[in-house]
Amino acid sequence: MATIVFYAVKNTAQATSRRSLISNLKWLSRAGPSRPSCPLSSGPLTTSRTSGVRFMSHGTAAGRSRRGVLALSGAAAVTTAAAALAGFLANVDHFRRAEMATLVPQAAEETDREVDILTRCRGFMSRPVTDVAALQERKEEMCTKMEMLIMETQAEFCKALEEVDGGTFKVDRWDRKEGGGGISCVMQDGKVFEKAGVNVSVVFGHLTEEAARQMRSRGKVLKGKNGKLPFCAMGVSSVIHPKNPHIPTVHFNYRYFEIQEEDGSKQWWFGGGTDLTPVYVNKDDAFHFHNTLKEACDKHHPQYYPNFKEWCDRYFYIRHRGETRGIGGIFFDDLDAPGQEEAFGFVKSCARTVVPCYLPIVRKHLHDPFTAEEKDWQQVRRGRYVEFNLVYDRGVKFGLATPGSRIESILMSLPLTARWEYMHEPVLGTREAEMLEVLRNPKEWV
Amino acid sequence: MATIVFYAVKNTAQATSRRSLISNLKWLSRAGPSRPSCPLSSGPLTTSRTSGVRFMSHGTAAGRSRRGVLALSGAAAVTTAAAALAGFLANVDHFRRAEMATLVPQAAEETDREVDILTRCRGFMSRPVTDVAALQERKEEMCTKMEMLIMETQAEFCKALEEVDGGTFKVDRWDRKEGGGGISCVMQDGKVFEKAGVNVSVVFGHLTEEAARQMRSRGKVLKGKNGKLPFCAMGVSSVIHPKNPHIPTVHFNYRYFEIQEEDGSKQWWFGGGTDLTPVYVNKDDAFHFHNTLKEACDKHHPQYYPNFKEWCDRYFYIRHRGETRGIGGIFFDDLDAPGQEEAFGFVKSCARTVVPCYLPIVRKHLHDPFTAEEKDWQQVRRGRYVEFNLVYDRGVKFGLATPGSRIESILMSLPLTARWEYMHEPVLGTREAEMLEVLRNPKEWV
Repeated sequence: MATIVFYAVKNTAQATSRRSLISNLKWLSRAGPSRPSCPLSSGPLTTSRTSGVRFMSHGTAAGRSRRGVLALSGAAAVTTAAAALAGFLANVDHFRRAEMATLVPQAAEETDREVDILTRCRGFMSRPVTDVAALQERKEEMCTKMEMLIMETQAEFCKALEEVDGGTFKVDRWDRKEGGGGISCVMQDGKVFEKAGVNVSVVFGHLTEEAARQMRSRGKVLKGKNGKLPFCAMGVSSVIHPKNPHIPTVHFNYRYFEIQEEDGSKQWWFGGGTDLTPVYVNKDDAFHFHNTLKEACDKHHPQYYPNFKEWCDRYFYIRHRGETRGIGGIFFDDLDAPGQEEAFGFVKSCARTVVPCYLPIVRKHLHDPFTAEEKDWQQVRRGRYVEFNLVYDRGVKFGLATPGSRIESILMSLPLTARWEYMHEPVLGTREAEMLEVLRNPKEWV
Repeated sequence: MATIVFYAVKNTAQATSRRSLISNLKWLSRAGPSRPSCPLSSGPLTTSRTSGVRFMSHGTAAGRSRRGVLALSGAAAVTTAAAALAGFLANVDHFRRAEMATLVPQAAEETDREVDILTRCRGFMSRPVTDVAALQERKEEMCTKMEMLIMETQAEFCKALEEVDGGTFKVDRWDRKEGGGGISCVMQDGKVFEKAGVNVSVVFGHLTEEAARQMRSRGKVLKGKNGKLPFCAMGVSSVIHPKNPHIPTVHFNYRYFEIQEEDGSKQWWFGGGTDLTPVYVNKDDAFHFHNTLKEACDKHHPQYYPNFKEWCDRYFYIRHRGETRGIGGIFFDDLDAPGQEEAFGFVKSCARTVVPCYLPIVRKHLHDPFTAEEKDWQQVRRGRYVEFNLVYDRGVKFGLATPGSRIESILMSLPLTARWEYMHEPVLGTREAEMLEVLRNPKEWV
């Protein structure tokens, strides 16, 4: 089994000044003893990368309306768990770590971003999961486009959070023995953020018979060669828990699946969403957040925002409490229409909306004073966040139940601290009661 | 539908001196407007109590070896969740609250305890779930014996904890519309205990077809009259989370099920266990705890301790972490042998072992100094406790999935505070690493 070696390049938190282009390109120029100068074109692609689903076909995708295939998306990669997707089946033995400073591309027009792969990679938190040479070679394929998008989204968001916090993300790289791997970026106990996690994962290989059975139970029989279905799954996911109770928690997750049937045809679909979990109701924040999402959605379809807003409220529901987790946002799954490029375009719009959705809210409340009682209420709400993630989140459940998952990436979404008070019920007329009322009866914010 | 009215009798925390026999008998002498002087013999039993399973038959129990029936015990009432049992199907609308001071019987010989029902009830945290008159009338039935035992266990344990803490338990009484109810005792943010919960529940009625299906899936078809199976389930459960990281968390749960088939024969079984979750390994504590349990077990069967110790390690296992929740104790379910009286005798021995198992450990470490780092490690372990309870505990899962459950009683087992640190791994050679080693490789302590 070919092994790819990544060097750990460590920058301390104080080393902001050292974040030069050169230091950030260390991973490009030091890919391993056998690749001393340029790893991008030297050396063959590894077996797993060339034989995997990742590049399994150059044909066009088929089966766009085959919704039965979407069972996996429901089970394997929903919400918090691109974490689960990230960790899902990761081989812990192959785990490696690297800490790197960040270099993020300047804000640019979308067209400007479509520059060559190598240039774009320079801005990432780490070398991509897939070899850069392979990405360049197959740059027209959706898997490449999506991997570039999720790496870019990770880098942009991490950079924006580092700027506002002053801290530095710890970058963990892990490989999956069977194919693929991930990059987990975590900042813990920063000035602004109690815990901030931004995960990328790209996994590929073959679906087990069990996974195929799970799919069949959702209504669609998928035929694999000798019972095996080559697949590729990738995504970026993030949960940010700030310290100040007036700054809301945010979560987003954008993912792509591809699966190949016996006849060579591909099934593919996108999923994702961004949602906000405030501790107190702030109508202006809620409007800004939802409206930014709505504008991104409206560019693609007038029904996207209303439908995906409602789906979000329905999904992030803590049934035993009769409350939603937060004030929602958008959530979608099984997106395989109207066409692959169009769907990708929509996902790209959503992913690029993360920073403008969230950062203005963070900055606005950065210096809001708060009381011990407000902090307590935040901790109680964090407890509910944990309840949702451990009891209901399909991705987390699937990840925890899958042997070999990277647990730390899956549970990265949990807050640093949480609290469970017996029979906690806010007094009527308080701001805490106002929040609960909104969680019990989801509102239209735009 | 007949409704039973309970008056809230509130004593403040400072009112220790008022804990006289008289004040504690308020609930006996004030059962409602229609029962001004003595509720015990005046007034008829309510319909639900006379028609329910609780007293459904005076015949002898049958079907002792019908293990298929035990599915419910697995699903409905395991571990933390006599909490779930307590809350399981509770009707929140019928919830009522009472805060009462405690009167607990003096330590006494077992024979001394078998005095009349009324005298024994005087020591409870609250009026029992079942009418005292009904208990007196059917004092030879197992349901009565078990209800008295769980009420007694609750009172003794609460009293012992109040003595060591100086605080007072808040007593919540709730009714279940369909039959039965519970008494939840909670002390939060005390001097010694961060959160201490001791639950009793007694529920009865008819099993739904869904519950019956669940049973069938475990291998035994149970025949009910018109598809309905009268049942009765009761238990006491408790989780105590102390503040000092050198005082371990303890959990126990003892429960009884009875179910009636179409032919009138009864199936019954007991379940339960006591287990310890320390933050640091203390071999003397572990020996004391396990040895006290072993002595209680050995009085009944030489295989009980080794079998139930192993079962405990197997049950309280956080699979995704590859760790047990704590250092175990005993755990058993489906106990329907050798006979009903013998099984009850064993459960009684176990229940009466709770205080001698735990309180000496609490007292020993009451004034142990601790560092901020030790407190942090405790909080990380609390996070694992939450993971077990929300992800694996069958009782919690069943309770949360059951509409109408009393959620606060089910989730009372969660700690007041918990913490999730990304990639937390103790340094080799530390006491934290020693603890993890024990959780990864369960030990024999006796």
